[in-house]
Amino acid sequence: MDLKKYIYDIPNFPKEGILFRDITPLLNDGEAYSYVIDLMVEYAKKVGATKIASPEARGFLFGVAVANKLKLPFVPVRKPGKLPRKTIDEKYDLEYGTNTICIHDDAINNKDKVLIVDDLLATGGTVNAAANLVKKAGGTVCGMIFLIELVDLKGSELLKEYRINSIIKY
Amino acid sequence: MDLKKYIYDIPNFPKEGILFRDITPLLNDGEAYSYVIDLMVEYAKKVGATKIASPEARGFLFGVAVANKLKLPFVPVRKPGKLPRKTIDEKYDLEYGTNTICIHDDAINNKDKVLIVDDLLATGGTVNAAANLVKKAGGTVCGMIFLIELVDLKGSELLKEYRINSIIKY
Repeated sequence: MDLKKYIYDIPNFPKEGILFRDITPLLNDGEAYSYVIDLMVEYAKKVGATKIASPEARGFLFGVAVANKLKLPFVPVRKPGKLPRKTIDEKYDLEYGTNTICIHDDAINNKDKVLIVDDLLATGGTVNAAANLVKKAGGTVCGMIFLIELVDLKGSELLKEYRINSIIKY
Repeated sequence: MDLKKYIYDIPNFPKEGILFRDITPLLNDGEAYSYVIDLMVEYAKKVGATKIASPEARGFLFGVAVANKLKLPFVPVRKPGKLPRKTIDEKYDLEYGTNTICIHDDAINNKDKVLIVDDLLATGGTVNAAANLVKKAGGTVCGMIFLIELVDLKGSELLKEYRINSIIKY
């Protein structure tokens, strides 16, 4: 299936000079979306995932469907202030400033083999921080899968200690 | 299945006097989560849904899994500034101030029978606004389903023109 026709290129969004890859047309096609989830499910089986984790909000759009299809647990990786109980936090650098993401401190244990699912691999900062959260909680990162990889941004170099896979490359 | 044991009650979150219903333990149990999605899928079939829509971010946690299971399209209902193309917007009142939610203006058409899926029905303001978006776009709201309904907040009265269903009532 030619998935790129379901991804719209939007120049200068969210700011001047950025080419945004809009995934909403893919979500709005039941066959194309289902095809993508099936590929992610195959990868989850291959790497032996026992739990799925995704950063909010666009990561949820893929991670929960993969988890549900395999009847696996799902861990939402959230921004500060969203999770009501004790959390484990991880701070990481952005181009300007820093960002923090969190999971509940009982969300992952030392038996969990966690597949991280996200829509987009750009510089890799967010998913690298998510992987650090998994490790802080005692779990193992068995792999990462992305709908889209922006190859020029070299996220795969930052993530070289992990098994990674991307369905569409630009 | 006794689903309430997978929902933790968190007093005074996000602020004093609010009893927050934490759904993350349910997500973190593959069987319980899958059971919930199956109930939502049955309802989607019953009301003849051809498209699923959910507000970010917690609505995504249920809506996409329902859409994927039925191979239906999914429409993310998002906060302003997140969708890169032309949007239809809907403003609604909160206890203090207002909120706005958006969909892409080509996300829904006049053939679509849209099921709105969300984690929680409280006052109903957000999903009522989401339903207005569906109607502005020319679609029909064939139903709404929630994991949790906070009955005392009377959201069902605001939504009385729609078919609604909730899996857990408090």
